[in-house]
Amino acid sequence: MNKVYAVGIGPGSPDQMTPQARRALAESDVIAGYTVYADLVRADFPDKEYITTPMRREADRCRQALASAQAGKTTAVICSGDAGIYGMAGLLWELSPEYPGVEIEVIPGVTAATAGAALLGAPLMHDFAVISLSDAMTPWDLIEKRLRAAASAEMILCLYNPESKKRPGYLKRACQILLEYLPAETVCGMARQIGREGESIQILSLAQLAQTAADMFTTVFIGNRTTRQIGGKMVTPRGYQTGKKKSKERL
Amino acid sequence: MNKVYAVGIGPGSPDQMTPQARRALAESDVIAGYTVYADLVRADFPDKEYITTPMRREADRCRQALASAQAGKTTAVICSGDAGIYGMAGLLWELSPEYPGVEIEVIPGVTAATAGAALLGAPLMHDFAVISLSDAMTPWDLIEKRLRAAASAEMILCLYNPESKKRPGYLKRACQILLEYLPAETVCGMARQIGREGESIQILSLAQLAQTAADMFTTVFIGNRTTRQIGGKMVTPRGYQTGKKKSKERL
Repeated sequence: MNKVYAVGIGPGSPDQMTPQARRALAESDVIAGYTVYADLVRADFPDKEYITTPMRREADRCRQALASAQAGKTTAVICSGDAGIYGMAGLLWELSPEYPGVEIEVIPGVTAATAGAALLGAPLMHDFAVISLSDAMTPWDLIEKRLRAAASAEMILCLYNPESKKRPGYLKRACQILLEYLPAETVCGMARQIGREGESIQILSLAQLAQTAADMFTTVFIGNRTTRQIGGKMVTPRGYQTGKKKSKERL
Repeated sequence: MNKVYAVGIGPGSPDQMTPQARRALAESDVIAGYTVYADLVRADFPDKEYITTPMRREADRCRQALASAQAGKTTAVICSGDAGIYGMAGLLWELSPEYPGVEIEVIPGVTAATAGAALLGAPLMHDFAVISLSDAMTPWDLIEKRLRAAASAEMILCLYNPESKKRPGYLKRACQILLEYLPAETVCGMARQIGREGESIQILSLAQLAQTAADMFTTVFIGNRTTRQIGGKMVTPRGYQTGKKKSKERL
């Protein structure tokens, strides 16, 4: 069978990789991924053939994986967190028409938004927006428009790719925009190296966040006006109509 | 130890529950949850003490779990999907000051947004908003404000709790608002009973979605102007600046 799995391996700890993802890797002859992620699974799957490509070569990596599957090798493209959130699933689908006969299956994973939120407390208990601050593939004016839209509608924000060596100061830039809508004391949180060595969290105000550096291993959370600190954690109450008996649980 | 775990068990299939979540349940003396979710784990953990409460009694359930932990029983409160997205993590933290000495640990899980996206293809490859259509705890005008904000900023939308027996027609209402901003042919998707018996997906236009009924077991995805169908799947290209070599991958 000519199959490519797009596998979300979770934030980094094998403990947070689903059995479904593990099985997909076990079934694969070839594992393709960014070098750092490949190293996260190599210990558990030492005998696989690996296709590792550096950062910013995702299209090459996906083409190699699709070609590998077309040649008859079941191939897994691994993504940290979830395969469908700023991961490789979309690119594989985009390229798939060039590789007829190759079947794609996306295996979801625990993404940084939920894993980071769990470490911080419960910041995402209300409607939220996930926005990447990377303007590599998205014009900054659109990113800024989305930041303004989310903040003005009182959505909690979860920021991926807050900044990088190539993009210093992007988090500060975003915070300065958000400070037009949100109080300086808005409760915010940062989760770094989630599920990996050196995992750390920090809870701080939006004003403090604007003065704090981040990196590509950091996920940033910005609360809304209801978010507060409880027991040193970042918590957004689940409802606006407190006291009201009804609930907004999914079921 | 007086401990409460808020455990995201994933969409429903044991295959999508992380080892971390499974271990938390194994370590627990008591498992508390909505009856339907308790039944999802009972087969694997038959010997636990169960606290099951009906829908809309989340506060009671969390209080019972916190009291159980205070009495010395390690207790897991289970949530479908992730514990921190419309789950019980926030409520446990909100109530925790009334139960001194009880430690809370949130265990993240695969949420319906990522699991549903994986089934549909790759709809969430760009910035997106997660919004619940339940107005049980949130005024409808705020939900409407968020729908307008997300659509006007070209964010992809993932809708939880689209409607229920008590809230018929809410999805149609939301679609009619979104049709003010998005073309009728906007690619949308529905994922139902994700990871459970009767799992199904549907890809349709926003105009068709406005005429389609949903329920509390359905997660709805609404694309942006770049979202399209590829190989019968719902795919949002990862970048706006196609052809540009740089990538927006998380690393």
